[in-house]
Amino acid sequence: MTKTTPQTNRRIVLASRPTGAPTADNFRLEEVAVPALEEGQLLLRGQWLSLDPYMRGRMSDAPSYAPPVEIGGVMTGGVVSRVEASRHPEFKEGDLVMAYTGWQEYAVSDGTGVNKLPAGFAHPSHALGVLGMPGYTAYAGLIDIGQPRPGETVVVAAATGAVGSLVGQIAKLRGCHVVGIAGGAQKCEAAVKELGFDACIDHRAADFPEQLKAACPRGIDVYFENVGGAVLDAVFPLLNIHARVPVCGLIAHYNGGTLATDSAAILRRTLTQRMRVQGFIIFDYYVNRPDLHAAFQQEVGNWLKQGKLHYREDVVQGLENAPEAFMGLLQGKNFGKLVVKLD
Amino acid sequence: MTKTTPQTNRRIVLASRPTGAPTADNFRLEEVAVPALEEGQLLLRGQWLSLDPYMRGRMSDAPSYAPPVEIGGVMTGGVVSRVEASRHPEFKEGDLVMAYTGWQEYAVSDGTGVNKLPAGFAHPSHALGVLGMPGYTAYAGLIDIGQPRPGETVVVAAATGAVGSLVGQIAKLRGCHVVGIAGGAQKCEAAVKELGFDACIDHRAADFPEQLKAACPRGIDVYFENVGGAVLDAVFPLLNIHARVPVCGLIAHYNGGTLATDSAAILRRTLTQRMRVQGFIIFDYYVNRPDLHAAFQQEVGNWLKQGKLHYREDVVQGLENAPEAFMGLLQGKNFGKLVVKLD
Repeated sequence: MTKTTPQTNRRIVLASRPTGAPTADNFRLEEVAVPALEEGQLLLRGQWLSLDPYMRGRMSDAPSYAPPVEIGGVMTGGVVSRVEASRHPEFKEGDLVMAYTGWQEYAVSDGTGVNKLPAGFAHPSHALGVLGMPGYTAYAGLIDIGQPRPGETVVVAAATGAVGSLVGQIAKLRGCHVVGIAGGAQKCEAAVKELGFDACIDHRAADFPEQLKAACPRGIDVYFENVGGAVLDAVFPLLNIHARVPVCGLIAHYNGGTLATDSAAILRRTLTQRMRVQGFIIFDYYVNRPDLHAAFQQEVGNWLKQGKLHYREDVVQGLENAPEAFMGLLQGKNFGKLVVKLD
Repeated sequence: MTKTTPQTNRRIVLASRPTGAPTADNFRLEEVAVPALEEGQLLLRGQWLSLDPYMRGRMSDAPSYAPPVEIGGVMTGGVVSRVEASRHPEFKEGDLVMAYTGWQEYAVSDGTGVNKLPAGFAHPSHALGVLGMPGYTAYAGLIDIGQPRPGETVVVAAATGAVGSLVGQIAKLRGCHVVGIAGGAQKCEAAVKELGFDACIDHRAADFPEQLKAACPRGIDVYFENVGGAVLDAVFPLLNIHARVPVCGLIAHYNGGTLATDSAAILRRTLTQRMRVQGFIIFDYYVNRPDLHAAFQQEVGNWLKQGKLHYREDVVQGLENAPEAFMGLLQGKNFGKLVVKLD
């Protein structure tokens, strides 16, 4: 054996639970020894760590669809890794895999939940975005719940984000009028020029509700909800009869935050417009809808190969910068899918 | 011709629009001459007038799914009538028909929207309730949106009302655990003893939320929403993962009224529980789902004949008493489907 086990794993653990927006104090960088492999185990060297809004939920111990990260536990996260060493029959050194090994550089695994990337995967980090969880989130929420028809108006916020950028592009490919919402002129310009949205409105503009209304002259048929807050307040009065609102995320409320529209008004409009408001967690679609997942992989994979989908990554270098990048993500500072290069 | 045209029609018109709860001032009883029939027309003598919560919406000029009643116009309403005279080829004297001829004793019609009751219809007033719009509302909302599965817990408010009483009984027939909510001990007792609900909770009780929770030990899978307000506040924390909430009405809000649950909390729970909240207007189901309407007529008609469904009417005598009865309906004073005997 010429190969030696690396000595040190760097990892980021939850030091304390945030109240409101997370701060640097809530995270702690630790260095620990990597244990020697036992029979049936494999050692993963992280290459790309995905940072996603859902992680804010894991930092809280409020009831949720998934258990929280324990205090002192490694932060949850999807990682694309290279198999560094293997004593597991199904994996060999050099395999590229995706697994939820968390915010760390190395992980020892028994293979559970470790998925090899398909051969010919052009960019390993795509497994964390357009061809991974955010991509399937966009696809399932839009297609299964949103059910957009050609000519309908689809609105999505965080228009240049990992999910929003795909929602809008898929809706365009389905023949819809697509209006994005984003923070700042640069993102709005990219949504129109790079992603092909019909319009993109800056939610920071003083007359944002009026601009949104003007961009949706036939109202809104599908609102892919991933932010909540003031964006939802502006969208709600524009929703058409039989509008569909897949609720994918509420990033404006993860750190607190309120709505101007009161709940009775939301229900009244849901009734009079015969709207469908439906929350979803992509995990359910992985478990219950393998048919839809296969359709997603084929359709989005083909669009990507054919150059019909633009996919932008916002790459941060080094594990130690993950907390700051994650805090920025919750404020919309990223531009494209946020990933951390680990090696 | 021995037959003479009746001289006088009594009708109730909208005198003014209510702010908050309607008052007697908002209605006016008028007497007008019945016009002579022209060729192609028929004269309808009202027998049963249906009073339903949706009529509160027609009294307002706020945007809605249907145009408001004009000031001075006859109040909207479904009526079972006897054809008194006919110069229309498809109708003959003595036919029993259902039509939206409004709060009046006589109406002249050209036949549009006039539907003959099927032969063998045991009780003509059933066409306004269990076999009519309220029945189809209960059936379509529960079956198409609620999608109850055996063993699931279904909760419905206004449990002894026209819609709620059917929702609960149909859910029982589908094998569900059914919990009603009603105002007062008498109605709650009737829901359990007459209608066969597993439990019925009095929303006026000080510990109503705790009682509701105790009656739903496995949480709530389907909440058929027809009231809103404090009932919804108590229901919301109990909704299970993948709960379905058909929103049929919001009677607690028709005259104003707020919710304690804020809208961000509603959306958050919709997301974390992956709930489906869907408004519906039964009119759409008449237009778009003739298949479901046929299934409703067959299934509910059979249950009724077989004595599997209990149906209670709250009968008010005389058109002049319709306004007071309607005002009481909005306060839950009725006990069963509210109808006015016109002749």
